[in-house]
Amino acid sequence: MGMSEQKVCIETSGKILQSPCGPIIHGLEDVLVKTTSITDIDGDRGILWIRGYRVEELAAHGSYEEVAYLILRGRLPNRRELQEFSERLKASRELSPAAVEVLRSLAKAHPMFALEAAVAAEGAFDEDNLKLAEALRAGRYKEEEKALAVKVAEKLVAKIPTMIAYHYRFSRGLELVRPRHDLSHAANFLYMMFGREPDPLAVRGIDLYLILHSDHEVPASTFTALVVASTLSDMYSAVAAAVGALKGPLHGGANEAAVKSYLQIGDPSKAKEVVEAATKPGGPKLMGVGHRVYKAYDPRAKIFREFSQEYVKKFGDPQKLYAIAEAIEREVLSSPYFQQRRLYPNVDFWSGIAFYYMGVPYEYFTPIFAASRVVGWVAHILEYWENNRIFRPRACYMGPHDVPYVPIDQRS
Amino acid sequence: MGMSEQKVCIETSGKILQSPCGPIIHGLEDVLVKTTSITDIDGDRGILWIRGYRVEELAAHGSYEEVAYLILRGRLPNRRELQEFSERLKASRELSPAAVEVLRSLAKAHPMFALEAAVAAEGAFDEDNLKLAEALRAGRYKEEEKALAVKVAEKLVAKIPTMIAYHYRFSRGLELVRPRHDLSHAANFLYMMFGREPDPLAVRGIDLYLILHSDHEVPASTFTALVVASTLSDMYSAVAAAVGALKGPLHGGANEAAVKSYLQIGDPSKAKEVVEAATKPGGPKLMGVGHRVYKAYDPRAKIFREFSQEYVKKFGDPQKLYAIAEAIEREVLSSPYFQQRRLYPNVDFWSGIAFYYMGVPYEYFTPIFAASRVVGWVAHILEYWENNRIFRPRACYMGPHDVPYVPIDQRS
Ligand SMILES: CC(C)(COP(=O)(O)OP(=O)(O)OC[C@H]1O[C@@H](n2cnc3c(N)ncnc32)[C@H](O)[C@@H]1OP(=O)(O)O)[C@@H](O)C(=O)NCCC(=O)NCCS
Ligand SMILES: CC(C)(COP(=O)(O)OP(=O)(O)OC[C@H]1O[C@@H](n2cnc3c(N)ncnc32)[C@H](O)[C@@H]1OP(=O)(O)O)[C@@H](O)C(=O)NCCC(=O)NCCS
Repeated sequence: MGMSEQKVCIETSGKILQSPCGPIIHGLEDVLVKTTSITDIDGDRGILWIRGYRVEELAAHGSYEEVAYLILRGRLPNRRELQEFSERLKASRELSPAAVEVLRSLAKAHPMFALEAAVAAEGAFDEDNLKLAEALRAGRYKEEEKALAVKVAEKLVAKIPTMIAYHYRFSRGLELVRPRHDLSHAANFLYMMFGREPDPLAVRGIDLYLILHSDHEVPASTFTALVVASTLSDMYSAVAAAVGALKGPLHGGANEAAVKSYLQIGDPSKAKEVVEAATKPGGPKLMGVGHRVYKAYDPRAKIFREFSQEYVKKFGDPQKLYAIAEAIEREVLSSPYFQQRRLYPNVDFWSGIAFYYMGVPYEYFTPIFAASRVVGWVAHILEYWENNRIFRPRACYMGPHDVPYVPIDQRS
Repeated sequence: MGMSEQKVCIETSGKILQSPCGPIIHGLEDVLVKTTSITDIDGDRGILWIRGYRVEELAAHGSYEEVAYLILRGRLPNRRELQEFSERLKASRELSPAAVEVLRSLAKAHPMFALEAAVAAEGAFDEDNLKLAEALRAGRYKEEEKALAVKVAEKLVAKIPTMIAYHYRFSRGLELVRPRHDLSHAANFLYMMFGREPDPLAVRGIDLYLILHSDHEVPASTFTALVVASTLSDMYSAVAAAVGALKGPLHGGANEAAVKSYLQIGDPSKAKEVVEAATKPGGPKLMGVGHRVYKAYDPRAKIFREFSQEYVKKFGDPQKLYAIAEAIEREVLSSPYFQQRRLYPNVDFWSGIAFYYMGVPYEYFTPIFAASRVVGWVAHILEYWENNRIFRPRACYMGPHDVPYVPIDQRS
């Protein structure tokens, strides 16, 4: 019944805050919150495995559909399974009328706010989602409910790209482009957004991006999803909350912030100055640099760096974004400040460049991150529900007790 | 620079899961995530202090406005300060047209989904919120930004009741009732909801409820808000996410679930049977019973129990809700199962009864919880931003590594 006090010791390389109640591991660095068989990261060597596969292998051979299946079901699909899974995704792409209205109402909002609202809205009308939440409330999570949970999870994966594309269309005052059944997840996304047959290299870029971001263990957004799910709220609410976390510039918002900063910098010659400014105490952080877990070059960054290079080779680099990023990277890799702290470019450092040249406005970079990561969020929720317990940590109270209440007219 | 491993030991009475990476404290029970000078709970003795005041004192003498000021500013206001604070709240009650449209689009949704969406929507149009987020992104959080943060926090406190009341009006196909400047926070809420001068005892009930729920250290919803805020996303996104967590039946959703169950039980004579069913392994939990921190009678439950009694004395108890709750409580307090586990009725056990008789549909109970707790959410965010660090825990990976990639046509 767990009432007796026990001492649990945790190894961490994090920052410790001392408090009268005991140590506080700031930001929960290295604190374990669950087990997983989805993703592993070797931060020192810069290796990422998804279901045991090296991310490089999945990026080289797979598609997002294949990787999403792998994440949700634990193994790679055969051709028939992949076909059926793709069909299910295609069949779930459309949104409820209410979610479409929400997106229309938020045409002028940053798309991450709109996405957060639209996911919550859609959740209210997905009967499977509500049925699942009701079963969980009643304490039932057996085979039937688990199958239902995977179904709800797949729907979330299917719908988020539609939400993003619809918001884009509304924001520009354009007609909605309905999903097209003959296109892959990545191609259909670009098609719904721009309303025309997408360029194959752009499709490959989106697909690659979606693969690379599909899961990353428990960063802040996934952790947010878990905390919400642990109350047995519902899967859409958990994902909406995760969208809110991903928006932050310390997390997914870094891809938008990175490209914005390259545009502002304007020329590779300014890289040194910019990188130096970021080493000053209280100065702005360099967006797309540093990682809580990677203390080496992010393997995803390497892949997307190459893709960006290929992309600008084919389509040009009029804004010199690739050249600017390259110059900043060079400075970072030779800066004692960054090297002592083991801060390297992360995936967000490189991911926005090709998007920018595809014509994706930078506010939509983080939404595309969400379109990828949603599969990781839901897969971690499924794992956590196998052995659910509400997240309810403590804070150390540092104030007075039993302060006497003074009537209002006697207060100074 | 925090790169060297260190051992940090934590005292917990929680459940420990063993993993190859080390112990996992399930649900982070007793794990400290921050310091606070807002709220303290003595779980063994059943005492709650807000800014050092016993909750009983605040409930007996204060109003929600006074307590909200106390929570946000750290001390009780004098008459002028309270007056000015109330004026600011009144001036911020209205919503942006976009948020109103979102609520209209979600007229048929459960109000918690609608509230989650509306908070995100409003956040996109609150210029102060966006300005604050921009400053945080640039690494600035000095006096000016802190003042701005309090302003944004106050707006959230002011607007959530309006969102709830508007949703109620839309859901019933009724005209919106605009906020009335001469009414208190609690009275105006009931007025906007029902469109008529509210009964004084109902106003007192809402006010009392708002006071009692205003903060409670770091339960799952507050923790959700902190995780989102730690990415420097923005205050509305953090609050929207917290709404998603509060919705869960293991958290704020318990007040709705509790009253639903009383209605279903229908008669006090069935209490024994219901309580016994909840003691069976895998059986449904008794809603409104048990608490991660209180291992004694919840002091807020005591206050609301008395109020409920007063309320049904005045207005009657045609559905026998009070009598049913009382009978269940009696069984719980004499059940070896519940007593061994130190499970007592919590505040949600008693809070729904008076609401039900005021004519508040039970889907709106948890939204009213949100209307109260919002002040706790934002106050904890303000504290955390004083020394922000992104929450990024770890999961223990239990799967294989370097699985060879098999081409799709060779998969079984
Ligand atoms: C990712 C990130 C949030 C990790 O945070 P963390 O584990 O809490 O790291 P810390 O903030 O403790 O950083 C450790 C040290 O490096 C510094 N640092 C980290 N990232 C930095 C950056 N991008 N630019 C400049 N300095 C940085 C910190 O100031 C700190 O210095 P100190 O020890 O002298 O105080 C952080 O590196 C960051 O903000 N990066 C920029 C945003 C980004 O790209 N996010 C996307 C991640 S995929
Ligand atoms: C509040 C709550 C989530 C706390 O969760 P927790 O700290 O994780 O507690 P646990 O689930 O570990 O509970 C400890 C034991 O009591 C049992 N228990 C807890 N609450 C129970 C309830 N309401 N009915 C029946 N059994 C309950 C658990 O099954 C567990 O038994 P075990 O040790 O034999 O497995 C939990 O008590 C609960 O679900 N209560 C009902 C929902 C509710 O009222 N929530 C509002 C809280 S303000």
